[in-house]
Amino acid sequence: MDRALRLLARSRLLSRNPGSAPKPGLGPGGPAVLLLRPPNAARMASQNSFRIEYDTFGELKVPNDKYYGAQTVRSTMNFKIGGMTERMPIPVIKAFGILKRAAAEVNQDYGLDPKIANAIMKAADEVAEGKLNDHFPLVVWQTGSGTQTNMNVNEVISNRAIEILGGELGSKKPVHPNDHVNKSQSSNDTFPTAMHIAAAIEVHEVLLPGLQKLHDALEAKSKEFDQIIKIGRTHTQDAVPLTLGQEFSGYVQQVKYATTRIKAAMPRIYELAAGGTAVGTGLNTRIGFAEKVAAKVAVLTGLPFVTAPNKFEALAAHDALVELSGAMNTTACSLMKIANDIRFLGSGPRSGLGELILPENEPGSSIMPGKVNPTQCEAMTMVAAQVMGNHVAVTVGGSNGHFELNVFKPMMIKNVLHSARLLGDASVSFTENCVVGIQANTERISKLMNESLMLVTALNPHIGYDKAAKIAKTAHKNGSTLKATAIELGYLTAEQFDEWVKPKDMLGPK
Amino acid sequence: MDRALRLLARSRLLSRNPGSAPKPGLGPGGPAVLLLRPPNAARMASQNSFRIEYDTFGELKVPNDKYYGAQTVRSTMNFKIGGMTERMPIPVIKAFGILKRAAAEVNQDYGLDPKIANAIMKAADEVAEGKLNDHFPLVVWQTGSGTQTNMNVNEVISNRAIEILGGELGSKKPVHPNDHVNKSQSSNDTFPTAMHIAAAIEVHEVLLPGLQKLHDALEAKSKEFDQIIKIGRTHTQDAVPLTLGQEFSGYVQQVKYATTRIKAAMPRIYELAAGGTAVGTGLNTRIGFAEKVAAKVAVLTGLPFVTAPNKFEALAAHDALVELSGAMNTTACSLMKIANDIRFLGSGPRSGLGELILPENEPGSSIMPGKVNPTQCEAMTMVAAQVMGNHVAVTVGGSNGHFELNVFKPMMIKNVLHSARLLGDASVSFTENCVVGIQANTERISKLMNESLMLVTALNPHIGYDKAAKIAKTAHKNGSTLKATAIELGYLTAEQFDEWVKPKDMLGPK
Amino acid sequence: MDRALRLLARSRLLSRNPGSAPKPGLGPGGPAVLLLRPPNAARMASQNSFRIEYDTFGELKVPNDKYYGAQTVRSTMNFKIGGMTERMPIPVIKAFGILKRAAAEVNQDYGLDPKIANAIMKAADEVAEGKLNDHFPLVVWQTGSGTQTNMNVNEVISNRAIEILGGELGSKKPVHPNDHVNKSQSSNDTFPTAMHIAAAIEVHEVLLPGLQKLHDALEAKSKEFDQIIKIGRTHTQDAVPLTLGQEFSGYVQQVKYATTRIKAAMPRIYELAAGGTAVGTGLNTRIGFAEKVAAKVAVLTGLPFVTAPNKFEALAAHDALVELSGAMNTTACSLMKIANDIRFLGSGPRSGLGELILPENEPGSSIMPGKVNPTQCEAMTMVAAQVMGNHVAVTVGGSNGHFELNVFKPMMIKNVLHSARLLGDASVSFTENCVVGIQANTERISKLMNESLMLVTALNPHIGYDKAAKIAKTAHKNGSTLKATAIELGYLTAEQFDEWVKPKDMLGPK
Amino acid sequence: MDRALRLLARSRLLSRNPGSAPKPGLGPGGPAVLLLRPPNAARMASQNSFRIEYDTFGELKVPNDKYYGAQTVRSTMNFKIGGMTERMPIPVIKAFGILKRAAAEVNQDYGLDPKIANAIMKAADEVAEGKLNDHFPLVVWQTGSGTQTNMNVNEVISNRAIEILGGELGSKKPVHPNDHVNKSQSSNDTFPTAMHIAAAIEVHEVLLPGLQKLHDALEAKSKEFDQIIKIGRTHTQDAVPLTLGQEFSGYVQQVKYATTRIKAAMPRIYELAAGGTAVGTGLNTRIGFAEKVAAKVAVLTGLPFVTAPNKFEALAAHDALVELSGAMNTTACSLMKIANDIRFLGSGPRSGLGELILPENEPGSSIMPGKVNPTQCEAMTMVAAQVMGNHVAVTVGGSNGHFELNVFKPMMIKNVLHSARLLGDASVSFTENCVVGIQANTERISKLMNESLMLVTALNPHIGYDKAAKIAKTAHKNGSTLKATAIELGYLTAEQFDEWVKPKDMLGPK
Repeated sequence: MDRALRLLARSRLLSRNPGSAPKPGLGPGGPAVLLLRPPNAARMASQNSFRIEYDTFGELKVPNDKYYGAQTVRSTMNFKIGGMTERMPIPVIKAFGILKRAAAEVNQDYGLDPKIANAIMKAADEVAEGKLNDHFPLVVWQTGSGTQTNMNVNEVISNRAIEILGGELGSKKPVHPNDHVNKSQSSNDTFPTAMHIAAAIEVHEVLLPGLQKLHDALEAKSKEFDQIIKIGRTHTQDAVPLTLGQEFSGYVQQVKYATTRIKAAMPRIYELAAGGTAVGTGLNTRIGFAEKVAAKVAVLTGLPFVTAPNKFEALAAHDALVELSGAMNTTACSLMKIANDIRFLGSGPRSGLGELILPENEPGSSIMPGKVNPTQCEAMTMVAAQVMGNHVAVTVGGSNGHFELNVFKPMMIKNVLHSARLLGDASVSFTENCVVGIQANTERISKLMNESLMLVTALNPHIGYDKAAKIAKTAHKNGSTLKATAIELGYLTAEQFDEWVKPKDMLGPK
Repeated sequence: MDRALRLLARSRLLSRNPGSAPKPGLGPGGPAVLLLRPPNAARMASQNSFRIEYDTFGELKVPNDKYYGAQTVRSTMNFKIGGMTERMPIPVIKAFGILKRAAAEVNQDYGLDPKIANAIMKAADEVAEGKLNDHFPLVVWQTGSGTQTNMNVNEVISNRAIEILGGELGSKKPVHPNDHVNKSQSSNDTFPTAMHIAAAIEVHEVLLPGLQKLHDALEAKSKEFDQIIKIGRTHTQDAVPLTLGQEFSGYVQQVKYATTRIKAAMPRIYELAAGGTAVGTGLNTRIGFAEKVAAKVAVLTGLPFVTAPNKFEALAAHDALVELSGAMNTTACSLMKIANDIRFLGSGPRSGLGELILPENEPGSSIMPGKVNPTQCEAMTMVAAQVMGNHVAVTVGGSNGHFELNVFKPMMIKNVLHSARLLGDASVSFTENCVVGIQANTERISKLMNESLMLVTALNPHIGYDKAAKIAKTAHKNGSTLKATAIELGYLTAEQFDEWVKPKDMLGPK
Repeated sequence: MDRALRLLARSRLLSRNPGSAPKPGLGPGGPAVLLLRPPNAARMASQNSFRIEYDTFGELKVPNDKYYGAQTVRSTMNFKIGGMTERMPIPVIKAFGILKRAAAEVNQDYGLDPKIANAIMKAADEVAEGKLNDHFPLVVWQTGSGTQTNMNVNEVISNRAIEILGGELGSKKPVHPNDHVNKSQSSNDTFPTAMHIAAAIEVHEVLLPGLQKLHDALEAKSKEFDQIIKIGRTHTQDAVPLTLGQEFSGYVQQVKYATTRIKAAMPRIYELAAGGTAVGTGLNTRIGFAEKVAAKVAVLTGLPFVTAPNKFEALAAHDALVELSGAMNTTACSLMKIANDIRFLGSGPRSGLGELILPENEPGSSIMPGKVNPTQCEAMTMVAAQVMGNHVAVTVGGSNGHFELNVFKPMMIKNVLHSARLLGDASVSFTENCVVGIQANTERISKLMNESLMLVTALNPHIGYDKAAKIAKTAHKNGSTLKATAIELGYLTAEQFDEWVKPKDMLGPK
Repeated sequence: MDRALRLLARSRLLSRNPGSAPKPGLGPGGPAVLLLRPPNAARMASQNSFRIEYDTFGELKVPNDKYYGAQTVRSTMNFKIGGMTERMPIPVIKAFGILKRAAAEVNQDYGLDPKIANAIMKAADEVAEGKLNDHFPLVVWQTGSGTQTNMNVNEVISNRAIEILGGELGSKKPVHPNDHVNKSQSSNDTFPTAMHIAAAIEVHEVLLPGLQKLHDALEAKSKEFDQIIKIGRTHTQDAVPLTLGQEFSGYVQQVKYATTRIKAAMPRIYELAAGGTAVGTGLNTRIGFAEKVAAKVAVLTGLPFVTAPNKFEALAAHDALVELSGAMNTTACSLMKIANDIRFLGSGPRSGLGELILPENEPGSSIMPGKVNPTQCEAMTMVAAQVMGNHVAVTVGGSNGHFELNVFKPMMIKNVLHSARLLGDASVSFTENCVVGIQANTERISKLMNESLMLVTALNPHIGYDKAAKIAKTAHKNGSTLKATAIELGYLTAEQFDEWVKPKDMLGPK
């Protein structure tokens, strides 16, 4: 649904500008939202106060300014691995918000008290919009099913819903985290569902737009440069000429196919595990629940989600994420090639290839004016290397599922989202700060091309291979030009050389 | 063309049974072939004699019983890396045969002397059929463009064509390796063309049929087992039940999608670089050459090859192979999961899970009768690990192209073909020697399922969660059954237990 | 120096508990520190106010509450890649603090104004202690030399030193970021120096202690279990017996060697690039600077740093990090094996192997009492997969240096630090929350062992292989015990069986 | 023992020249050997005849000209995966020969009939020397313990020993494959022992000598080039100068450390599993057997093998191979960097960097004289990529052991040996065909260096940074030299420029 997508997009924008305050506005529930207490307002006054909650292991102190509950706190105690930067990625949390909202709607269809369902929906929308990000402290390195994050979500939504309904935090009344928020669900099907939703959104909001932007900029450059004839290089050595536009057209094709590849992987990502519950059978759900939830998620996101045709596969294997990661791995290869070419073609200013002039984005060395470091190429190639590494992590995790469940879920989605975000962001940065500003150093290009010995090829039909070879070898030995050498050897006149040696005629088949 | 494909298939079969002699038959040229001298007959009597050939570096001894020439010999001297097992894969050589035949046909259209063209076609067909495999001694670790293998092919075809026409080996007359066999071609476009042809054929002849066979066998087992209710396992721990058929249906889905993924990568593989020549411009070819060659190759192989829309990309990047390798990497994950499950479910016979009885294929230990090692699972998981490694090699190579040429070509195709062959062969071996013979140990399955504590779930609606939990905890503590414990605790009667606890009712949504 | 290390250790502890406020105390400068203005106090009142700074590209708004300057702000504008979680790892920042302090000391020896040098040292100490972490907003995905982070450090230290000396932020007086803080240094040698310092500290503070803790806990269990005889499993199938203590001794050895391997990689990590400046020649430094800085860093950290014997290698290649990453990759394999074994041996409670009882750390399923998910094993195996992936990223980056500089530096160190932290933290978590609480399920172990058919081996010397085999095969077929079968077949008496079949005698060579 | 090593070295040489016939000579048993029938002479007349052998599954046809028996044939039927090129690597077979000889010697000490022991030793020596390579048809993709290859070895040695003693092939008399050849052994300890022996020999015979050769050649070049001042390049861009000798010294250091790293991994490789038998306990061996076998192997190979301190680790994990593979992975990074630099520095001849002149090893393009493709660099970088991929395969296999056995053994050792051989061979090829022939293009180097704008740095102390910057910027803008610009701007005289701007003074600290 457009509104939902816009909300998502907005929340993304907000989350990218952490400095700016969230703008007030009509929430998903319409005007009524204005009447809601803002999150954390009254009850959460002191950052240092705690409430006591219980799980079956005993009592736990829960910070008063947090919506999460005992199971979340328990996880923070058991998994002190990696710290803040290792928290479950926000896109997973937001995807859970979407899923829980969808589930609440469907559960209402199947009889859940509308008051409770509505409160869950509102709270879930806040999660989906990124308003409650601070309430998800758990790290990726937890249980491999993501159970603890599912419970974190259940606790936050239930407490926020309780608050909306005027209840007491931690009381589990009137909105219970398990019985209501997690109704007809299990960690084993919700977490993979959230994984797919998060991956699909990141692909559509960050990765594909980034690649498109890069594609368009490269294509514009390819057209801009289509009359500039330059020397080709194979084996990194001088070869026959092509146009700079042709050279860039190869990059355009690579990025175009990157998009094709990623899109080709999406059909399996659009399949949602929801409805499979504990082992894939759908125990404790209702007939139709799976299909309805997928449909709701599709409406909420505007993406063509469907219920997975086989829930056993959807829980026990995450081949779809390995596949998507593979498409991004191929993309990383493409982008590394392009960025490498651009930095080498832009190398110099005096002692490199020097065919491209790259935009200068930051102060060069205080010593060497004219030294432009190809920093955007460097960021891009580092990203490419990271994506290749992430892909191996995803592969190892994806190959190690057992029986009814793969328990590398949080690690896998973390890496997939990391790759998507990095590739998307780096494509935008590379485009804006490098590609659009690339200029051809036409003087240098022309000089290198005209000095090239391989233009001698054009003389073969006129004076024969042997004489042409003699010219080239002599020129190479003496460091002289083909033209001067040819004339000196008495094989042709200056006029003949100019007529016969035309790089322009070497750019395609006859 | 069917005939061509049949020839290929036959030559493959032959090459798989190196012991059996090549069967005589109507060659591609029809009856006339019968009149041809068999290869190496008269002139190549002595294995120890040499002829002298020259390249621009001087003279070289070429074994008299070999069709290759000076450039091939030169390469064997410069690249002593890895030995026999590192030779260029035969599928690449055969693909070159197909390409050279197609090119000769097209060159004839553009004016090549039909006598020469025909001789090339016949020699190229022999290469395509694997009849001249011994004449390709070069290793993968040569020039990164595969130039030396292209020349090896040109030399072999030219000499064999010379022989067919009654000329002298090494004379380059009347069939010149460069001027005729390589006409309108360059290593830079022929090698990637041969890569794509080889990969496509290996995928269609080995990989996809192997996966299909595995898929069908798993599907049959899934149906065979669809009434066998067993305990599920999540986190490797006991969970709620499912049928063994459902469990296998997950494997079926994985293999089905493996096929989908591989097929999704093929459109880029079907694009051929031929016609791009040295740098992608098509210099020295004729307009239409590219399209015609692709069409001929399509006819010869029965596969939908087309000319690559952008030759610069087709020479400088091999993203298509990285993509295909990625699809095989995902397949490796799927197969590792399946093989792991099967060996664990078949573990025992006494101290493992013991739910499956795997076929015994070789003598067990001389000490322990009944010990069946899951050797087919082990071969499969080793193959999976290899494919994951190959994928990284392909990725690293694919990311390191520069300017107009990627020079990791031989390494890349070697790994792609290796993965395709291993996955295909291992799928067949695993199917024939393991999957089709798997039996369910129904007694054991039933015992484990009935002992399972999680069946207590079924009592919740009847006696409430608390009492149900009490039963389960007591049974766990005492190592007793749910039923005995429930009765002992006085919560229900034996009849009630039997009526309420029905695993059959736990296999799907309500 | 002990004090320095303690400071580092303390700052680490603080940074791990982000909630707790930094404790006041004696800073590195002794009592005088108490007279310093606390950072950011007076001048940085408003979070929303800016000061204007300039670089050669024009003016930039710098937040008033930040010590960084124009070049840092410029970088945040040019590299919008990945967001907050992608910031340069704090250990790199702290390592820069140590390096800049050491350089200031040495520069003072070579004539730098002691007042300036002292202020730099004090500010650098604050960086090293993690007090100024908020002033380092740059992401990893920047220039591949880490230049911008080096400038970020120079700006923060210069401004904080200016503040200490009562000057105006951004004035570059009296402490200039380049001329003073970066004196005798270049990004090209400081960044790799900081990389090595950060890696060495993380290894010594997190990784090695974590592994030692795990080693000790496994060793204690190995001893605790040394009398428990159990069935062995090869190919996942039943095999001859060993003790549970022997099984754990294999894990002990693996972790012991993990430590050995990591330590074996450290000598190359202890080599510092400082003194190489721009390309490795040491232009603009003084003879002796390199050695003195390394010596100071060694004193400050208590680790045996030395100057790199070849600065060209130290700037242009980061093989030492690839090597260390490789040692961690091997460690990941070890830990994955151990964690996998433990979760399978602890699988059940009824339908798994059930030989180990793992500690229950969080509420099990609300349905299934007794279900303990091996969540610590899952966290550990996810970490292992991540480390394997990180290693590939490091490898790809490490292989792609060109000429005098490798420009994958930030990416490489990010991954190395990530792996070290995750492995160290996960080892501690796994030890504390799993290993120390593992209990042997002796009843189950004994039952499985005694039921095992392979004990029949012990009868070979007494009744011959054929009769023994008959017993085993019959027992397997009938599902009966060896003893009952043997007696039933009339091959021996109950007493003989008990005397001859003694698993205890099968635990070693004779 | 020297003799043994010489034998090994000779057999290696032989195996590398498959064309040459094995030379007769004194075998390990001294003159008596001359009396032995040559292998396969009398009895193996017909290639097409078979003998019938039996295993517990029934009868099998064994080719009469082969020493292997029923279990080997059975494996060829069950594992049709990959074909000829996938056979178990010969170094593993040879290592088994060494092990079986050592075991026979020790078994004789423990009472094995000397006649039998001696025959086994002689047959085993033939295996170790590579004389029986054709009798090992099994592929890597078999059981993951390598059991079938162990049985292949047992069968071949027993039959050859039977032949030596005048018995009947396949009779198992008087030398039984299990009872005698495999005495006190199990596949589970022999295969890992053979893995370590094979890896150690390949490292010592191929890898380390290859690296040493490369190191020495680079070091010689570093000295040869130590007076050639050239422009440095960072970020691929022009930077301050260094000598070409300094640049090469970085490569020297990389290769030196590669050797250090590989050697650092060897202590764990020298640990042998022999004596652990089935699960690591040493059941069915004698006390002292393990130590004595390791000592014998050490004597036979001249390498410091010892018995593994913990056999459980030695069977269940192959961390030592992952470690060694990691050291080779680091080496691959080093070599890729070096080969990349050399090809870029040698790029041209006109339009590249052109600082190095690489030896021309094969005919260049028929069109472009002077085009030298850096084919040795390409082979090396392809090898590097392969080694990185192999490392991932080894890593995945190494992480997936279960309980008392890792069952990825054949795959792991295949990849380790592949990497060692490729790196060693490629180092030799690269050295002989590239490094030793590299010449500095001093004219070009000098031109680029003198044109470089960064030499302006030298003027800072004399005319101040601002004027220096003005000179550089103006020169860059106008494409003029620093000197001309400086004089034109009136900042200094030609004499002053020549006196102040001396690249030679920029090569080190002051």
